[in-house]
Parts: sequence; C-alpha cells; structure tokens
Amino acid sequence: MTPAAAPATDPLAPRLRWFGWGPPTPPGAPEMDLPPEADPLLHELGAADVHQHPVALEDVRLAPSTLDTAPFAAVVGEDAVRTDRLTRVAHAAGRSYLDLVRLRAGDASGAPDAVVHPGSPEQVAELLALCDRLDVAVVPFGGGTSVVGGVNPQRGGHRAAVTLDLGRLDRLVSVDRVSLTATAQAGMTGPALESALAEHGLTLGHHPQSFEFSTVGGWAATRSAGQASTGYGAIAELVAGLRCATPAGEIVCRPLPATAAGPDLRQLVIGSEGALGVITEVTLRVRPAPAVRRYEAWTFPSFAAGAEALRTLAQAAAAPDVARLSDEEEVRMNRLVAAHAAAAPEGQVAAIFGWEGDAEDVERRAARSARVARAHGGRTDPGDGGEQWRAGRYAAPYLRDVLLNRGVLAETLETAGEWSRLGELRTAVTGALQATLGARGTPPLVLCHISHLYADGASLYFTVLAAQQLGAEAEQWHAAKAAATEAMLAHGGTVSHHHAVGRDHAPWLADEIGAAGLDALRAAKGRLDPHGIMNPGVLGL
Amino acid sequence: MTPAAAPATDPLAPRLRWFGWGPPTPPGAPEMDLPPEADPLLHELGAADVHQHPVALEDVRLAPSTLDTAPFAAVVGEDAVRTDRLTRVAHAAGRSYLDLVRLRAGDASGAPDAVVHPGSPEQVAELLALCDRLDVAVVPFGGGTSVVGGVNPQRGGHRAAVTLDLGRLDRLVSVDRVSLTATAQAGMTGPALESALAEHGLTLGHHPQSFEFSTVGGWAATRSAGQASTGYGAIAELVAGLRCATPAGEIVCRPLPATAAGPDLRQLVIGSEGALGVITEVTLRVRPAPAVRRYEAWTFPSFAAGAEALRTLAQAAAAPDVARLSDEEEVRMNRLVAAHAAAAPEGQVAAIFGWEGDAEDVERRAARSARVARAHGGRTDPGDGGEQWRAGRYAAPYLRDVLLNRGVLAETLETAGEWSRLGELRTAVTGALQATLGARGTPPLVLCHISHLYADGASLYFTVLAAQQLGAEAEQWHAAKAAATEAMLAHGGTVSHHHAVGRDHAPWLADEIGAAGLDALRAAKGRLDPHGIMNPGVLGL
Repeated sequence: MTPAAAPATDPLAPRLRWFGWGPPTPPGAPEMDLPPEADPLLHELGAADVHQHPVALEDVRLAPSTLDTAPFAAVVGEDAVRTDRLTRVAHAAGRSYLDLVRLRAGDASGAPDAVVHPGSPEQVAELLALCDRLDVAVVPFGGGTSVVGGVNPQRGGHRAAVTLDLGRLDRLVSVDRVSLTATAQAGMTGPALESALAEHGLTLGHHPQSFEFSTVGGWAATRSAGQASTGYGAIAELVAGLRCATPAGEIVCRPLPATAAGPDLRQLVIGSEGALGVITEVTLRVRPAPAVRRYEAWTFPSFAAGAEALRTLAQAAAAPDVARLSDEEEVRMNRLVAAHAAAAPEGQVAAIFGWEGDAEDVERRAARSARVARAHGGRTDPGDGGEQWRAGRYAAPYLRDVLLNRGVLAETLETAGEWSRLGELRTAVTGALQATLGARGTPPLVLCHISHLYADGASLYFTVLAAQQLGAEAEQWHAAKAAATEAMLAHGGTVSHHHAVGRDHAPWLADEIGAAGLDALRAAKGRLDPHGIMNPGVLGL
Repeated sequence: MTPAAAPATDPLAPRLRWFGWGPPTPPGAPEMDLPPEADPLLHELGAADVHQHPVALEDVRLAPSTLDTAPFAAVVGEDAVRTDRLTRVAHAAGRSYLDLVRLRAGDASGAPDAVVHPGSPEQVAELLALCDRLDVAVVPFGGGTSVVGGVNPQRGGHRAAVTLDLGRLDRLVSVDRVSLTATAQAGMTGPALESALAEHGLTLGHHPQSFEFSTVGGWAATRSAGQASTGYGAIAELVAGLRCATPAGEIVCRPLPATAAGPDLRQLVIGSEGALGVITEVTLRVRPAPAVRRYEAWTFPSFAAGAEALRTLAQAAAAPDVARLSDEEEVRMNRLVAAHAAAAPEGQVAAIFGWEGDAEDVERRAARSARVARAHGGRTDPGDGGEQWRAGRYAAPYLRDVLLNRGVLAETLETAGEWSRLGELRTAVTGALQATLGARGTPPLVLCHISHLYADGASLYFTVLAAQQLGAEAEQWHAAKAAATEAMLAHGGTVSHHHAVGRDHAPWLADEIGAAGLDALRAAKGRLDPHGIMNPGVLGL
C-alpha cells in the first residue's frame, strides 16, 4: 500500500529529517560540524572527545503496525495512509532534546501505527469519527516541531494510534483585505503562509524559531509566540476565528473582532494541543507587508539595566517589534563561538531591536525606542549585528544536531513572569539548572535572554549546554528540567511562555492552573472527546 | 433581623434606586423631566400624552421569603443578611428596559429570598458550600447594572435563591508599581477603584457607561468594554489574574503577562457571568494616570466616510483612545434634543475623539490621528463638544427613567463585526428594528454609533426609541429584540459586544458559538457547579 521509501518529490514525504532538524538529507550526506572556534566551549563543558552519530534508519527499533488501514484509506485514499518505516519513524516524536537522543539511539518505539494525511476539514471530521468507533488514539501533527512531547503518540489504553499529518491542508482559503484577516488551512507552514499572503501584499508577522516547518494549526494549538510578538502579538491575539473538529462535532468560532458572548471559546481551543480536537482552519489578523525592516544591535551596561530599558519601552508603548536582551552568560557564549551577532564588548550585554513597517513609521518608532533605550545606558552597536541576527534567526535548532554529535546536552526552556519578579525568576531558574547538573558532575552553561515584552512582564528564554551523561541522558535532563520548572512555579513564573505543555510539562499543570481549573478542562475534554482518543497524555487530560 | 428600611448611612443599602438609575432618591423627591426641546421627539414617536410613574415601594408585589437565614448569618453576621422589602426589590432585577418596566409596574416577583453580603473571598467560598448543601440558587451581584438579565434571580428548580451582593469586597488588595498591576476585590465600583488607584498615580481607564455603579468583578464576569477600550483595551485584555470561588473549589489564575500553559482559563472565567462561580479578586493591568485628557468633536461628510476613517486609524495603530462615530439618525436626534455634544451641521455626521497620556504623547498621537481623519474628510469642530461628551458620558441611563415616565420605549443593543460587513450589519439591524416596531404601529427611531475599534472590525451600538405599547411592553420589545439579534447573527455580527449574554441573549448562544461549544461550556459548569446552583439560566447553561 505504501512505497518502501518516499521519494523526494512525494508531497507527503516527511518534511524534517527523522533524527533531527532541517529537511531530509540524502543518506551519507556529510554532516555539518562545529567550527573550530567552538573548541574552547567543548573543553569548558568537558565534552571535547565525543563523536557520535544517529543509527541508520534500518536499525531503528519500531514495533510492527497491526492496524488495518483499509477504513482509513476509504476516507482519504490509499496513498494518503502511510505505514512505511521512514514515515512512521519521522512521526514518532517531536524535536525536544530527549526526542532526538532517543531517535538517534534508534528508539522509535512510540511511533504511530499509521500516518494519515487528510485532504480537507471534512475528512478530518470523518477520521475522528472513525477513530472514535475503532478505539484508535489520534495525534494531530503539523510541523512536528514540538519540544514538549506534543506529537509523541501515546495509546492511552486504546488499541492503536494514528498520526493525522495535516500537511495537505495547505491552502489559503480566503483573504479579507478590508478587515485585514485571512483564513488559512491548519497545515500551512510559515513560509507557505507568508508567501501566499505576500501575493496580497500582506503578512502575519508570526516567526517562531520553528517558522520554516511549523504550521498555522500547530501555532494555534500550542499558543505559540513569534520572535516579533512584541510588535505583532502572540498567536492568541492573532486568531480572529477558527474551526476545530472534535469527536463530538465541530467547534466553529466565527471571525469576530470582539464579543462578550460568554467565555471565549477561541481561548479554550487555542492551547488545547490536540486534546480536544483538530484545528483545521484559522482566521488570522494580518497586516500590510512592511516596506522596511530595520534591525539593530544594541549594548547595555548590564542585564538589569537592559531589562529596565525593556520594561520602560513596553510600558511606554514604545517597544520595538522585536526586542531581545541577552544576559552576560549568553553574551560570553556568543563571543566564544563568534557565530552569533548578539555579541558585545567585555562588560556589556547585547540586545537586538527590530522595527517593521512603512519607512516613516519605522523611523518614528525607532527614534522613540532609541530615546528610551539611551536613557538606560543603551548604545547602538555600529556593526550589522541586527541584520546578522535576523539572517540567523532560525539557525539554533540546526546547531543542536551538531552539538549532539559532540556529546553536548543542548536544550531550551522558557517562562514568563511579572517585571517585579523577573530578576528573581532568572536567578532561581539558572541556579536550579546549575545546581542540578553540577551535582551530576556536568556543570552547565545556562544562557538567558528576554525576547517577548508585555506591559506587566516578559518572557525569559534559557539555553542549557552541558556534557551529556552518555547512557543516562534522560535521567540527567529530567532532573534538571524538574528543578527548573519547580523554580519557575516558586518564583512567579509560568511553566511555559510559548512551548506549550505537551506531555513533558503535564505533571506541573495542576500546580500551574490549580485543581479546579484542571477539572474544568477535563470536563470540557470529556464532553468533546468522550472516549479520550484525542492526543492522550497531552496536558495530562 | 433586618431593619425595616435601610437608612442612608447604611453601608449595605442598595446603591441604585429600586426602580431605575442613579442613587436612591428620598421618597417624594421631584423627578427630573424632559426638557421642552424634546417635545418634537415625543410628537415624532407618537408618545406625547403619556405621564406615568413607578408604583410605590409598598405596592410592589413580592413573594414572601421562606428562607431560614440563620445559616447565612452564621457565616457573614446577622446584619449582612437582608430580607427587607427595599433590599429584595432592589436586587430583583438588573437595569434593562424591561426590568424597569416590570419594576415600575410593581412586579418584583423574581426577587431573591435574601441578599447576603460576604465580607471576604473566604466567606464567599463558605456561602457557596452552604448554598450547595441547602439547595439554594446563588446570584452574584456587583453593581446590579446588567441590561441582559444577568442578575435577575431564577430558582432553576432549587428551593430558594439568594443574591450575593459583593459590595463589601471593596478593597484595593495590592499594587505592583513595577509591573503596573493592581489587585482589587470584586466589589469595588469604578469610582472606588479609580480613586484608590489615583493615590498611587495610576488608572485602569475602564469606563463603561455604568462606571459609577458597576464593579470590577462585574466587568470581568460580563466581559465588559469601557468607552476608552480602543486605547486602554477591553476588560479581557486588562485582567492579568483572578480568583473565582466555585462550588467545587477556587479557580486561581495567577497574574502572568502571558503563558502557553494550555487553554486560557482566565478567558473561561471572564464572561462566565456567575454561571461557574463568583469572581472575588482581579489583578488588573493599570497605567500611570494621564496628565492630559484631550477630547475633541469632529465631523465627517457621512457615516460611511467616518467609518472608513476609523478603520484606517485602527489599522494604522493611530486610533484615539476614545473614538465614537454617530450615524445620521443619531446626529439628527442629538440636534433635536440639543442635549448632547455630538451634534453636527446638517448633512454631516459627528465623532468624538479622545486621547489620554502625558502632554507630549497626547500631542503626538492626536496629530497622527488628525492627519488620517482629515484625509477622510474629517474636520475638527471648534466648540467644546469633546469635553461636553466627556462630562455627559454616564448620563444616558438617567435620561431613560425620564423617557419611561413619558411612555417612551428606550433601549440599547450592541454588536461587533468585521469592517468588511459593518455597513451591511448596521443596515440589517436598523432595518429589523424598524420593520418589527413599525409593524406594531410604533415606528422607532434607531440611532447607531461605532464606539470600539479593532484592526479587524468595530462595535455597533444601537439606541431604539419608540412609543411604548402600554400593557404590551414585553411583547413589543421581545419582537424587536429577536429580530435585531437574528439580523446580527445573519450578517456577521455577535449577539453582544459588551453587554454579555445574561438570560436575555441565552436563546441565541447556540447560534453564536455552536452546539459543540455550548456543550463544552456546559461540561465545565457541570464540573465546577455540579448541582447547578450558580446563577441558573444565565448563558443558558
């Protein structure tokens, strides 16, 4: 029924290589390596001597699929139901550090029994009804870029699991130039969406680091925030309407600028991570494509001074559209590997500011931002650091694959908190990571930046680098992750600013939203998904 | 147990007079009358000869209270449980047109069996547990200004109903000047909140027409929008965190600038109208109190031209904080009664623009707005119409009492829709009201204005004036309301932009959010309020 290996021209072929980031590479293609400038980093981490590589696809451990695919083929067509090794392995996990560790070691034991590619919202609804009848768990799959276990199939007691890959739902359904809204099918990737909008002179401006692969539906399902969310808004603000297929019927939130008709159902579906249903269409608030994009590098005398500048900018409604501030350790790391723009002179920290719009608008807003930033000791960096940052804004996950080859644990975590507790929050999370990994004999580098501003607070994004405990990678990272997450909760933070909950954060959701809140979500799920087939384990529901 | 009549100094005395708007008036105090300038209006409506007045309080029909109040007094103290006639009648209904018609006619048949005044969030929780055990329905009550039946007690099959008047929860709990947030108890009224914030140099900037009486908790529970929401944001954007007591336990949403930890529970509680629980505390995003408030009257050559100007302003992020545009009929009416600032020369429509902030900020933003407005034919009106509007911004509900004395049906409705359908939406709603009331021999005046701007659309606020069908007021208005609401739904509108659902819009909630959406809300309610005691009938849950 399925081809033994999907040819490159197969429109249903996996879009990410099965063991890491980026598009599939031909077998045997040379792997990028770390630049020699990174040697001091490897030495500092104590990970200089490792050279390891993923197992071959044929050696990946994969349970046989026992699912009868005929009923699925009857809905979507034979070619749109895949059970071949590559497809199943490529849908076995998301792209967290431990996902990659497991995949590279040849563990795809959680792979779905089949991957089904619906071609329309109606087919999605039919498939949910079918799975409900056949007692099959359903994992909605957009770009597969989850870093919190959001697409890792769990059977949840059901007899099989299928992944619904929404890649065929790749159409811009309609554009309303007057209202500045556009309706997109859920499977459109960032580049597909932006290029379709560009034909109308429009943009969404939503650029998460996963932009190249992640999808409209995935953004909404995970409550995503793009790198320019300070200016363009996070996805929760950009969604005017949506359609979500559930086993109990479709939820349709008509596009509306605002409504007081009860609780906001949009905000129940946004962030529901496939646990209630499958988002099939999203009406997005778009904007005229900017004529000018201006990105600058800035320096500040300290992280505290820079943070105070960002707070003032956000509270004065004078913030750039992109505003990122690296802490001392992130700046030191950038300086060390010299691969990143956000470096800064010794004793200074670095920031990236970006403004997008028409020329006059950018000029005016940049001047306002600059006035505030200078009052807090900010200085523009004369180089082209801003443009360098923009050019490399999606690069980090590629680098992680290479670090894994060299035995380096490389993972990120993020939180958000009120300005009054942000310093405390950063110290606590950094300290928890250092203490936990230090106690295991793998003292880490913990880098941090602020990258999303609000009047009342900001996000904190942490990058952790340490020598892998080979053979005990999971225990090592689980200990660090638990300590960091508990530090977030104890110091006014949330367990996630934009990575979502997935399965990895689910144990902490009750601490985050309380027992009554979790109960309310469970009840809603119980009604919309009475047999619990939707993405079992996600959100802990 | 309760005083026969609450003296004026009683802190638990009703804050609105029992039959209408405004603070209680001494018995026999002269009632304001319509100015003689309104005579042509009364003639046009065919309502010139009516002079009617509310019945006396003693003559109001009120079922005896059969509730044993002792268990309630054990929680809150004897003085905080009221069963006297005035208190029960004053809590029998909100302030919709038909509420007033019924109350003035002496019908308080729906009055609660008792009004209980909790003094703390903990007492609220205890009272919910008590009511759950005793099978007593609970109606949360803030200012009592609902115009959609949100506080009109329904027993819903339970043996009695008590109203929880939250007026004693009137404390500003804390202020975070760094994060610009403030935590307020739910019963704080607009003036109480703003005066407490002013001591810290802060403002919320949330000014619904009910501002003088409505409360923080009521705003959140009804998904309210203030007159300056274009600049300050609607309440759904201003809430950073909240506490909500439910029969199944407390929902606590910690104040956070943003989170991706699953569906947004804040947005499930906001707009829940007491059907899930009682909001007891809200953490609000506040701002420095503006040094300058600048309000101007503008004219535009037509409503369509003005609407196009507002759309351009909103989409260019150049909108004033307050932006209101009256249609031709509203302008004609304003001209007729000469009681309102937003008049305009013959053949023009009128707008009010307001900016608030520091002097430089107001200057800069007003100049930007003016440039856009002028490009669409807008002209500043040299008079002090802007300030007149601001001075009279809470006046309309007082006028309604006087119109009722003269036999005039006076009610408002509001909706919101995308810009591309806003013209069609206004025509449809206006037409539905004219056709329905015209067919009953009471052709109405239907006035409309835009008063809340978004990039993708705006609100439409309708005022309906017609001769009352004396003795058939309910049938008359129900027919008009149904026709208008169906027109909203058929032409891309929502059943409410900021008045909420209450009991009056509940029949249309399934059309608004769909069967699956309504089911999800019902399930959440079933879990948080398993015996259905919370505000039965509201939202149709």
